[in-house]
Amino acid sequence: MKKRQEKSPVAMVGTWPDILLIRPQMAENIGAAARAMANFGLNNLCLVAPRDPWPSAEAERMSSGALAHMPPVRVFNHLKTALSDYHFILATTARQRDMAKPALPVRAAIAEAKDRALQGQRIGILFGPERTGLENDELNHAHLLAHIPVDVDFPSLNLAQAVNIVAYEWMQTEAAHVHSFATAIDPPAPHQEFDEFIVRLLSILEDRDFFKTEGNKPIMKRNLRNALLRGQLSSQEIKTLHGVLTCLTAKP
Amino acid sequence: MKKRQEKSPVAMVGTWPDILLIRPQMAENIGAAARAMANFGLNNLCLVAPRDPWPSAEAERMSSGALAHMPPVRVFNHLKTALSDYHFILATTARQRDMAKPALPVRAAIAEAKDRALQGQRIGILFGPERTGLENDELNHAHLLAHIPVDVDFPSLNLAQAVNIVAYEWMQTEAAHVHSFATAIDPPAPHQEFDEFIVRLLSILEDRDFFKTEGNKPIMKRNLRNALLRGQLSSQEIKTLHGVLTCLTAKP
Repeated sequence: MKKRQEKSPVAMVGTWPDILLIRPQMAENIGAAARAMANFGLNNLCLVAPRDPWPSAEAERMSSGALAHMPPVRVFNHLKTALSDYHFILATTARQRDMAKPALPVRAAIAEAKDRALQGQRIGILFGPERTGLENDELNHAHLLAHIPVDVDFPSLNLAQAVNIVAYEWMQTEAAHVHSFATAIDPPAPHQEFDEFIVRLLSILEDRDFFKTEGNKPIMKRNLRNALLRGQLSSQEIKTLHGVLTCLTAKP
Repeated sequence: MKKRQEKSPVAMVGTWPDILLIRPQMAENIGAAARAMANFGLNNLCLVAPRDPWPSAEAERMSSGALAHMPPVRVFNHLKTALSDYHFILATTARQRDMAKPALPVRAAIAEAKDRALQGQRIGILFGPERTGLENDELNHAHLLAHIPVDVDFPSLNLAQAVNIVAYEWMQTEAAHVHSFATAIDPPAPHQEFDEFIVRLLSILEDRDFFKTEGNKPIMKRNLRNALLRGQLSSQEIKTLHGVLTCLTAKP
């Protein structure tokens, strides 16, 4: 990384995003994804609950040396742990999702993420498993959805090809300097801080029987998380909200 | 193709480019390239002198159904035959080549090719073999080089990933409506017409001992071809040049 950061003024002030493969199935796709990342200067790969054992000789082979070229791949069991340090989380989708969440074509989404990276924010870019893509509960953690446009007659994009396009766009596309939604003056808090607040809030609501209909509970929780995530709360704002929550729930 | 052309006004007036893999080595890369093409609406694949036998079960497998979805792949023994019908030939390169030929980053090159396609020109996009890329004599046939920017520390791009980026750019990027060099009012002639003229000219020059130093002959021929190719001569202009040549070489 040091070597790369010395290359250009842009790289010197910015950070490159991490690529996170969520529940990837085939080790060979992980290797091919690593190769595509290295081709376009991305070096940090994380796996969340991979199906095949890791490390993998097949992945090494398909990476054509990229895995040896990169820092060690980090492996997590749970998405939540993997996401805790990011300020801005982008999730890729091949099909449009019906969610109350900003979505942009991948080029525009990368332009926005790059702008944030240049401001020092840590960026995580999520890719779902080969067959199904990301589940709604996983997409739910993202601040922005990046939609890769495909032919409706043949939409099934290989995982490594999706990573290839994102990595290519990261190298190729200029930072946007405009945002798909307003940027807070302070950067969003690391994801863990937001997550702890939401978990606390939902648990309090649960205790107080806020979610009356059992069937709607997951959707209500998701909507609530999404609504608050969209505000891109800073660390200070989350502290304040914790105070508000404590205040509201205090016994008189 | 018919079905696709009914989809949008842009598709209705334009034609999609053909992808030509020149001397591809691994059948599995051909299959993966076909899949990437189909993802982004490109349907016509040509192979020139493939190493592995064709058709190939391995390619079918890697294409995830794309080869069955597309018109049959056409296979040629010689580049020249494969190129004969195109008006505008784009060649992809991972490294910069020192040639007297216009070169653009892939995004801008695709924007130009798409503009020409919308004017009814037939476009061929060439990809070289896995290890070496296109040879100079092959690049020589191209009107424009498309440079895929890669990290200098890890530049070796998988063939299917290169096709993936070109196909993605074709779907994603708007036609340029400006040209990297001036467009003739008439479109360039189909490549075969140009080629026949050059072959005739070079053969006459050869007979007349124009190429005095045997060692420089290939380079001199290449430069001459390049210089004339750059003018994007129309069919009418080539006819005129044939007349000029006949006139110049006629015995008094």
